[in-house]
Amino acid sequence: MTGYRQIETARARDFCETLFHSYGFSTDESKTITDVLLLADLYGIESHGIHRVIRYHEEITSGQVDINAKTEIVHETGISAVIEANKVMGQLAGTEAMKLAIQKARNTGCGMITVRNSNHYGIAAYYTEMAAAQDLIGISMTNTEAICVPTFGSQAMTGTNAIALAMPADPVIFSYDASTTVVPRGKLEVFRKTGQPLPDQWALDADGEPCSDAAVVIDNIINKSGGGIAPLGGVGVLQGGHKGYGLSVIVDLFSAVISGGLTSNHVNRQPAHTGICHYFMAIDYGIFGDKTSVKDGMSKFLQELRDSKKARGQSRIYTHGEKEAELFAQRINTSVPVNEKTLEELKDIAHKLKVEFTL
Amino acid sequence: MTGYRQIETARARDFCETLFHSYGFSTDESKTITDVLLLADLYGIESHGIHRVIRYHEEITSGQVDINAKTEIVHETGISAVIEANKVMGQLAGTEAMKLAIQKARNTGCGMITVRNSNHYGIAAYYTEMAAAQDLIGISMTNTEAICVPTFGSQAMTGTNAIALAMPADPVIFSYDASTTVVPRGKLEVFRKTGQPLPDQWALDADGEPCSDAAVVIDNIINKSGGGIAPLGGVGVLQGGHKGYGLSVIVDLFSAVISGGLTSNHVNRQPAHTGICHYFMAIDYGIFGDKTSVKDGMSKFLQELRDSKKARGQSRIYTHGEKEAELFAQRINTSVPVNEKTLEELKDIAHKLKVEFTL
Repeated sequence: MTGYRQIETARARDFCETLFHSYGFSTDESKTITDVLLLADLYGIESHGIHRVIRYHEEITSGQVDINAKTEIVHETGISAVIEANKVMGQLAGTEAMKLAIQKARNTGCGMITVRNSNHYGIAAYYTEMAAAQDLIGISMTNTEAICVPTFGSQAMTGTNAIALAMPADPVIFSYDASTTVVPRGKLEVFRKTGQPLPDQWALDADGEPCSDAAVVIDNIINKSGGGIAPLGGVGVLQGGHKGYGLSVIVDLFSAVISGGLTSNHVNRQPAHTGICHYFMAIDYGIFGDKTSVKDGMSKFLQELRDSKKARGQSRIYTHGEKEAELFAQRINTSVPVNEKTLEELKDIAHKLKVEFTL
Repeated sequence: MTGYRQIETARARDFCETLFHSYGFSTDESKTITDVLLLADLYGIESHGIHRVIRYHEEITSGQVDINAKTEIVHETGISAVIEANKVMGQLAGTEAMKLAIQKARNTGCGMITVRNSNHYGIAAYYTEMAAAQDLIGISMTNTEAICVPTFGSQAMTGTNAIALAMPADPVIFSYDASTTVVPRGKLEVFRKTGQPLPDQWALDADGEPCSDAAVVIDNIINKSGGGIAPLGGVGVLQGGHKGYGLSVIVDLFSAVISGGLTSNHVNRQPAHTGICHYFMAIDYGIFGDKTSVKDGMSKFLQELRDSKKARGQSRIYTHGEKEAELFAQRINTSVPVNEKTLEELKDIAHKLKVEFTL
């Protein structure tokens, strides 16, 4: 892979743990943050993997992340809780919240936890798969800084606002994890670098009209001068953009509104405070009958999807989480690809933190 | 409106109630079915309104709907139930299931009900708004006969598979109700009638390639000879079609898999049995704290969306359910538009059933 180096997985893990420890996170906290990060690289989701350490460095050193803070449960019932995250790392708030959701699901069949004033939590699938590993359905959502323009609008009001759901199945878990925008911002960056025009329906200019110039869109996003990315379904209503817009509102409802936190349009508007909010749910699907037969039903349906007729020129129909599981199996005991520019930046960060650069 | 006649709302209601009563449904059952139907017309969703009586007539007379059947609860916990619908009208299974979800949410904070072997239940928003009228969050999903082609596939495997969610807010409820396909089948029919080419990304031919000929796509759907409608996000992955595909799988998980019913690809494959499955959830959002403040948070966010900057040439940003609420207010005490062809067909049905045609 041009521009990429293969880094031994174990070495990448050790380096990240050491790096996070050097900020002042405990050994356990550093392991948790690294585990979430690395799962993204193992799944092939580079934007949320080691590459993201550079952004986390800024967030930690700018005070957006408070390394000494602890979360608090501010409201709780047998099936629910609201967590005030007090600006902890998103991965710490996230794992804690999903553990609580899992515990409630074990006790009552279902746990719904909403989290306010957190930070970027990495890939949503990490948390839903925590639940699936306990033989539960896991759901997670997170808001982000506004980047998505509502139907008929010209101003970003909702975030990439991911929705994730994992359900146990054989031979491979069903694990859905997707933003409610057409694409995440990272995809625009790739087009900016290559100078190619953006596909139709991806992005809007400051007047709310479709825009194919990635540089214009990204500059507008950075300067908050209007426009942004289209909701899933694209610009306007012809391809169902109003549906993606509505899904992004639902993510803000569960993460920000019911937690009393900041909706996407207010995220990242204050210094040293992102205000990102999440939602976690675990369901013991045994509340619907015999678990073996429910799980077998899911496995059978997924296999029927994979076995269904392919489009001309296509050899395979994937179910969600299948590609990621295959990459994971290849990479977990070998190596992950890391961009050379990312490696250089990590070297700088290690130097600043007086941590040995071992990648 | 050319080709449409305005029918007094009260008269439309009386006629439908009398018609359903004449099949053998009780007065209460006839009122419930009519109430669901008519809400679609009041909301401007013609496809699911009075127009649909023609399909229901076929389903009732062919035995797909069993007018004498009763639903059974086959599994139940404090927060969940599985209902075997035994081929009752979908509206009867749906209202009963959402009532049970509401009752459980009142007792425990949350109710999740999954329903198998039902029939077409009308607009999903009817049920979610039942919950919202009780100051709860309502969620509903339903599968349908397969019409949606998975990413990289050429064979319809999932249904239009609607997702609906309603959350109380002032001055107008948030009510999302959308298929997980780019468009419903009804939209293709309109293009077939006018002979216009379909927009890109709407539909696929039997080889799984984008197809702009509505007649070809509809004939293939009817003959089950391949192709169909694209998932929300379109054909392939460029515009996020894999995201809509995943959402449609999630609908089948909650409606069909956990109920032990038929997934979309098995719906309508046997004579006199559709096998359609639904899911209903009610959440008392008081489990997350003070209800007034949560509801106010939602009202504020929705107002910010409506007040955000408009795209050039647009005067208004809608929130979901707003257009429908406005049409409802206009139509509830006046009249609803009904297509003249629909009126002719209803006249025929009334004649067959020896019911006076009063529209």
